[in-house]
Amino acid sequence: MQVFTRKHHKHQEPGTPPGTLPEPEAGVRAPLTIRMVDYTTEEVLDRELTDATDCLPYLERPTRTWIHVQGSAEADTLRELGRIFDLHPLALEDVVLGDQRPKTERYDAQLFMILADPEVRDGRVQVHQVSLFLGNRFVISFHSGPKDPFGVVRERLRHPEGRMRSRGPDYMFYALADLIIDRGFPCLEALGDRVENLEDKLLQNPTRETPRELQSIKRDLLLLRRKLWPQREAVNAVLRDEGRLLTDETRVYLRDGYDHAIQVMDLVESYRDVTAGLLDLYLSSVSNRLNEVMRVLTVIATIFIPLTFITGLYGMNFHNPDSPWDMPELHWYWGYPYALGLMVVVAAGMLVYFKRKGWF
Amino acid sequence: MQVFTRKHHKHQEPGTPPGTLPEPEAGVRAPLTIRMVDYTTEEVLDRELTDATDCLPYLERPTRTWIHVQGSAEADTLRELGRIFDLHPLALEDVVLGDQRPKTERYDAQLFMILADPEVRDGRVQVHQVSLFLGNRFVISFHSGPKDPFGVVRERLRHPEGRMRSRGPDYMFYALADLIIDRGFPCLEALGDRVENLEDKLLQNPTRETPRELQSIKRDLLLLRRKLWPQREAVNAVLRDEGRLLTDETRVYLRDGYDHAIQVMDLVESYRDVTAGLLDLYLSSVSNRLNEVMRVLTVIATIFIPLTFITGLYGMNFHNPDSPWDMPELHWYWGYPYALGLMVVVAAGMLVYFKRKGWF
Amino acid sequence: MQVFTRKHHKHQEPGTPPGTLPEPEAGVRAPLTIRMVDYTTEEVLDRELTDATDCLPYLERPTRTWIHVQGSAEADTLRELGRIFDLHPLALEDVVLGDQRPKTERYDAQLFMILADPEVRDGRVQVHQVSLFLGNRFVISFHSGPKDPFGVVRERLRHPEGRMRSRGPDYMFYALADLIIDRGFPCLEALGDRVENLEDKLLQNPTRETPRELQSIKRDLLLLRRKLWPQREAVNAVLRDEGRLLTDETRVYLRDGYDHAIQVMDLVESYRDVTAGLLDLYLSSVSNRLNEVMRVLTVIATIFIPLTFITGLYGMNFHNPDSPWDMPELHWYWGYPYALGLMVVVAAGMLVYFKRKGWF
Amino acid sequence: MQVFTRKHHKHQEPGTPPGTLPEPEAGVRAPLTIRMVDYTTEEVLDRELTDATDCLPYLERPTRTWIHVQGSAEADTLRELGRIFDLHPLALEDVVLGDQRPKTERYDAQLFMILADPEVRDGRVQVHQVSLFLGNRFVISFHSGPKDPFGVVRERLRHPEGRMRSRGPDYMFYALADLIIDRGFPCLEALGDRVENLEDKLLQNPTRETPRELQSIKRDLLLLRRKLWPQREAVNAVLRDEGRLLTDETRVYLRDGYDHAIQVMDLVESYRDVTAGLLDLYLSSVSNRLNEVMRVLTVIATIFIPLTFITGLYGMNFHNPDSPWDMPELHWYWGYPYALGLMVVVAAGMLVYFKRKGWF
Amino acid sequence: MQVFTRKHHKHQEPGTPPGTLPEPEAGVRAPLTIRMVDYTTEEVLDRELTDATDCLPYLERPTRTWIHVQGSAEADTLRELGRIFDLHPLALEDVVLGDQRPKTERYDAQLFMILADPEVRDGRVQVHQVSLFLGNRFVISFHSGPKDPFGVVRERLRHPEGRMRSRGPDYMFYALADLIIDRGFPCLEALGDRVENLEDKLLQNPTRETPRELQSIKRDLLLLRRKLWPQREAVNAVLRDEGRLLTDETRVYLRDGYDHAIQVMDLVESYRDVTAGLLDLYLSSVSNRLNEVMRVLTVIATIFIPLTFITGLYGMNFHNPDSPWDMPELHWYWGYPYALGLMVVVAAGMLVYFKRKGWF
Repeated sequence: MQVFTRKHHKHQEPGTPPGTLPEPEAGVRAPLTIRMVDYTTEEVLDRELTDATDCLPYLERPTRTWIHVQGSAEADTLRELGRIFDLHPLALEDVVLGDQRPKTERYDAQLFMILADPEVRDGRVQVHQVSLFLGNRFVISFHSGPKDPFGVVRERLRHPEGRMRSRGPDYMFYALADLIIDRGFPCLEALGDRVENLEDKLLQNPTRETPRELQSIKRDLLLLRRKLWPQREAVNAVLRDEGRLLTDETRVYLRDGYDHAIQVMDLVESYRDVTAGLLDLYLSSVSNRLNEVMRVLTVIATIFIPLTFITGLYGMNFHNPDSPWDMPELHWYWGYPYALGLMVVVAAGMLVYFKRKGWF
Repeated sequence: MQVFTRKHHKHQEPGTPPGTLPEPEAGVRAPLTIRMVDYTTEEVLDRELTDATDCLPYLERPTRTWIHVQGSAEADTLRELGRIFDLHPLALEDVVLGDQRPKTERYDAQLFMILADPEVRDGRVQVHQVSLFLGNRFVISFHSGPKDPFGVVRERLRHPEGRMRSRGPDYMFYALADLIIDRGFPCLEALGDRVENLEDKLLQNPTRETPRELQSIKRDLLLLRRKLWPQREAVNAVLRDEGRLLTDETRVYLRDGYDHAIQVMDLVESYRDVTAGLLDLYLSSVSNRLNEVMRVLTVIATIFIPLTFITGLYGMNFHNPDSPWDMPELHWYWGYPYALGLMVVVAAGMLVYFKRKGWF
Repeated sequence: MQVFTRKHHKHQEPGTPPGTLPEPEAGVRAPLTIRMVDYTTEEVLDRELTDATDCLPYLERPTRTWIHVQGSAEADTLRELGRIFDLHPLALEDVVLGDQRPKTERYDAQLFMILADPEVRDGRVQVHQVSLFLGNRFVISFHSGPKDPFGVVRERLRHPEGRMRSRGPDYMFYALADLIIDRGFPCLEALGDRVENLEDKLLQNPTRETPRELQSIKRDLLLLRRKLWPQREAVNAVLRDEGRLLTDETRVYLRDGYDHAIQVMDLVESYRDVTAGLLDLYLSSVSNRLNEVMRVLTVIATIFIPLTFITGLYGMNFHNPDSPWDMPELHWYWGYPYALGLMVVVAAGMLVYFKRKGWF
Repeated sequence: MQVFTRKHHKHQEPGTPPGTLPEPEAGVRAPLTIRMVDYTTEEVLDRELTDATDCLPYLERPTRTWIHVQGSAEADTLRELGRIFDLHPLALEDVVLGDQRPKTERYDAQLFMILADPEVRDGRVQVHQVSLFLGNRFVISFHSGPKDPFGVVRERLRHPEGRMRSRGPDYMFYALADLIIDRGFPCLEALGDRVENLEDKLLQNPTRETPRELQSIKRDLLLLRRKLWPQREAVNAVLRDEGRLLTDETRVYLRDGYDHAIQVMDLVESYRDVTAGLLDLYLSSVSNRLNEVMRVLTVIATIFIPLTFITGLYGMNFHNPDSPWDMPELHWYWGYPYALGLMVVVAAGMLVYFKRKGWF
Repeated sequence: MQVFTRKHHKHQEPGTPPGTLPEPEAGVRAPLTIRMVDYTTEEVLDRELTDATDCLPYLERPTRTWIHVQGSAEADTLRELGRIFDLHPLALEDVVLGDQRPKTERYDAQLFMILADPEVRDGRVQVHQVSLFLGNRFVISFHSGPKDPFGVVRERLRHPEGRMRSRGPDYMFYALADLIIDRGFPCLEALGDRVENLEDKLLQNPTRETPRELQSIKRDLLLLRRKLWPQREAVNAVLRDEGRLLTDETRVYLRDGYDHAIQVMDLVESYRDVTAGLLDLYLSSVSNRLNEVMRVLTVIATIFIPLTFITGLYGMNFHNPDSPWDMPELHWYWGYPYALGLMVVVAAGMLVYFKRKGWF
């Protein structure tokens, strides 16, 4: 349940003034790196900044700038960035808090988007928050996790022929968002494998761990759904945004990203649909196995009960030598074989009867 | 069930004229306090009123006024306030009745909003009603519970630099609403812990109390849902309101509050989703335990049944000294060891068979 | 099931011309009373009519008229009223048939609304139909049940200061509708008590009657839902109506009535949600009880099975005086105590084992 | 299942040109009759046609014409009608195929509506397709079943005073549609009786046939839902149609028909809701009965087990005349009565214990 | 589960530049054929192309061209086609990846539609992707499966009178889409047969394979739903498209195709509804069978238990010749017959009792 409680819906103390930037808790702070990429069609400049203000000299040049902050940003760094790029304090608050609902907000001349970056780590789904600011000449991205997923984009930027070099920051914004959306696919693939394995196990050899595993998968799907459903809406909100930050061409590409967001949601819903029936299937499987056991055992017991009755019968001590009814079988010449035969006949008869009824 | 019945959907006798203010029942009346805060950018005046009319002198000054009424207001106090601030009788009726559905109403020049303030007390969720009036130069708030939650806001007002001092009553309105919305988070956290504990218990050691506990959690979630779902809509209604009471800047902040309202609802829905499957999980857990018991016991019984049959067999009293078939085993030299050995063989055979079938 | 079949979706023979007024069946006819209230701000005239045409003289005076028909109206009375007030035949057909879906229709200059008046009688929910016509200077109401619920309204009319006296027929229309909507609250309270009692019983002492009782509650909730859901829509339709029959002031009051209609629906949905899980809870409760019984009994049986085996063992008749293996225990000095001791040890061992496993 | 497969979603071979009219399969062809009613306010002419072209002479007269085709029309007849009245080939294809989804289409100057005519035959619901064309001066109706349901309408036409005579073909169109919609009520009444009976049986005396019967009812409801849900939409589409084929007056009547369509759907949904819980109720009923059996039997078994143990105990053959512990009970004067007494005490003790626990 | 994972939601490595064409994996590549049909009202030219560029000469003629690519297209072929017909790289990416969500996109002057072609192969549902481009004078279609389904269309083209010859490429576009939509019917018919068979089996003779089979059907329905639901939307998007590519006449036909798409979805939903209850039915069937077995066996056991007790009773060895209570029955003249008679009476009594209770 940890997924839902303390870790996953971070919030400030009720009554805190809006836009207050909380310090991330000391224990969980991921190491912070700030990386700036300054690029035009002609050249690319990629460097790590030790301080947010280090980017100031580059901003005066007629280039496009992408600043990526990896890890839990401290309030100080954010305040500086906020001042330099004129970011809205409410947006910054969302960045620091982390674990916000994906959404798109327009603050005057800027677009602010929160996305969810799902990842499977140690078999459990984890969701990191990605925050993107799109301004006239810059893109700023924040990723709350320990590992920077945007290496591929920097790679693509290095190709001088790449579309990315020749286009504005809106295309960069699209590229980052698209990458994060697409990261849902491998995550769902891993989850799909788990569902598949569980289902096989469940039909063939269910153990007591199976419901627990099932519950854990359901939890992961629920988490994904809670994050990815609004994400779809967030991308759509960018598409519908009427500002001039996005060119029509980038919009076409983003529509493709929107399609992917829908496909990811479709998969989540499909998996939810499949897992919904699995607990019933498990119960049916378990009770089938028990039925089988009980049936065979009961049949064995039932066959021996009349036999034991017969042995008890001839174990009685009636004794009146004067009576002709004094358990004459006991004194017959064929008495014992007769008793054994009787038992064989009874047992065989019951076996045949049960077999015919299909009880074992 | 008390949650739903007598206490929680207060209503007047059908046919009562609308706007009639009922006296709160004597027994449940929380002590009433009226507190007025009169502020401008320069000064703040915070005092407790003994009577509603005490605020009259302050209203003539060009300041902003926030009046907070804590506890169950009597009809008299409300009528006075209603006369002073020109509040609509239907709104006042909703205030006195309490336990209304969150909503936003516009009455001419005023905005009236009902919110739900959830709180966990003694392990059960309780919901108090918060009613807010926003006028041109004042905010009036009512809280039906025993404890005033707005202390933090008064604290913030004391900072001369705070945004709150320099802005209009609409910002105060936002601040109060936002605080109430955010109070959903700690409440849901507590509920989340309960769900978490219950789930652990359920998978490891379910008792007969578990369904009862589960039912109680479901009830609390249902109550929250019933209150918080319309709350979202109420905040949205304020955002969509086209009057001039709210400045654009406050709207931006309120949009943030709206996001929080959605996040709270998301959590409620997630918990509902998680608890939905828990009764099934409990049943599967209980039946798993029973199966285990039954299986082992049945196996024990089944093994002893043929053994007892054998003892019965050699306990029979067949006796015809002339017959060679007269239970010759009884007279063998190795008779008794043979019988014991037979039993060991039979028992061992069954054990092996059952083991192979995986029945215990 | 009667609720759903013959009694509750009355309809005419397919192919009957629209607007045909059927005679109510003789057996079920409630006694019919027509009561007219003619009022202005100055005076109120309240009298029972023996015939619909008796109201004609009053209609020429510049007053407001409210005619209430209680019980199953015959086609004749309706035809007369229809002619006098120019009511649409389709509306009259709905009035006579009864048990129609709540709805609002506009027929030229008139507004026609059907509402559902729920009532708990002998522990079962019954729904009577209330039909309201609003014209320029009159309101006509029909109530299909045996008892007139509008006494309170007539009471209020008698106060010369009351709002009702000074306002138009639209306010009377609102007052009647609001009263009917509010009658949902006590009805739901009674139902809530039943749910509460059932739930307690179910967790503590479920009997075979419990599912039947549960089914009956579900049925009542279903009936209420079927009637009250469209009622909400019907009230909304009046609010949205663009004609001049309703003043803006009455609309504000009606909006309050609309809120109540939503609250009633919310309660119905909440109860449905609560009862949805109760059958599962019952099953879990029953199977818990059975498990307990089975477990204790099985443990008892299982303990005695090996003991009985031992008695059988020493009840065997092996007898060869020449053999040293001839059941020597039988001839020991401590033989019998040894056998008893063996049984005690076996029984105690099993008890300890089962106890440790937590099986009883 | 036949309801769903071969018979109920007739379709052409994929790739067939649109508007191709298939011949109905020889085996299932219902006898075909064409009946023409030509009417004005003054006179009515009702005759059976042997060939579609027989109607040609009447079309030139300034009358309204209603042609009804009963049974499975052959492609030839339809092609002729299509040519005479200028019907769209796609509509004709839908008529021949049958079993189409209810819908309304506008083809230039004509309105084409498909409705579903439900009927209970031999206890199972069957749905016939009714297709209606409304032109400027004619109505054409098709009914796929063996029996003409429109006799009542022809009857009404004969009354010279009837509204139908004096109004245009749109009123005829309404009358036919309304009749078909209303035929849902008796059908649902029959189904409601079946649900009612089943529920009674289920609570009192469930048999193995009950689930099968329940499944069959669910199937029928599903079929009705699949047909009647779009029917509502189809009627609404006619209401929203902006052409001049329908007068405002007819629209008022059709709105009444729309209300009926909603009421029918409401009933279907209510029955679905009721039946949804019935399988659970059945299972609870069956397991209740089993529990009772098992409990009594187990109690009997459990009481005899210790008794049998006692008999086994005193059936042991310990025999050492020298030992004072040599089963002294066997040699007591009151030995046998003591043993019998012991058994009585044990049995009575267990009975009391079980009784107190409430196990039988 | 394979349906959902690796094979069915193909996606590129996150971060790949948009519009990159991946090579299909070597192993699964279906043989590729390109077929061009060039037609006017007068003549039809149908030939297989070895290279995409072979079509260039035909494009200059004033004819309509339909190019169909069957099997997994390589990136090279697509790039060529893309260059020749100016296809959008994002659309081409969707074509190569395959298994995309059905959708309609407008890229400048072209319409791009993805459809799903369901097929039952070896008893499992498989879905191939069909991609259609509609340009001013051409249609290009891609089918990812091994078999070309469009033979029927080519056949129809050969008829010189066919509508297809005389109309533009939009009609060809419609014809191809309609064929693919209609292919859902036979597929669902096959699935319906499976559901029908399963249900019969389930009510009469459920085996352990039944839940597995049921799960597999549910999976297939889920897959169809995931593909066919958006397909409906895709067709609707074409209908709503405001470009001039489609004539009004073709739109009428396409509306018919849209109806079929809805009908297919209706069937999928109906089957889902039917299968939803089947696992419960299976469980009820299985537990019914088990109950029957357990009941008969328990009755047998219960009857013999008291009998065996009696035999044990008279097998006891009480022996004190001096006591008159020394098991006098054993010495009676009628002792043995009395004992046998006692057993018969007990057994018969229990049989009668059980019979009356209806326990077997």
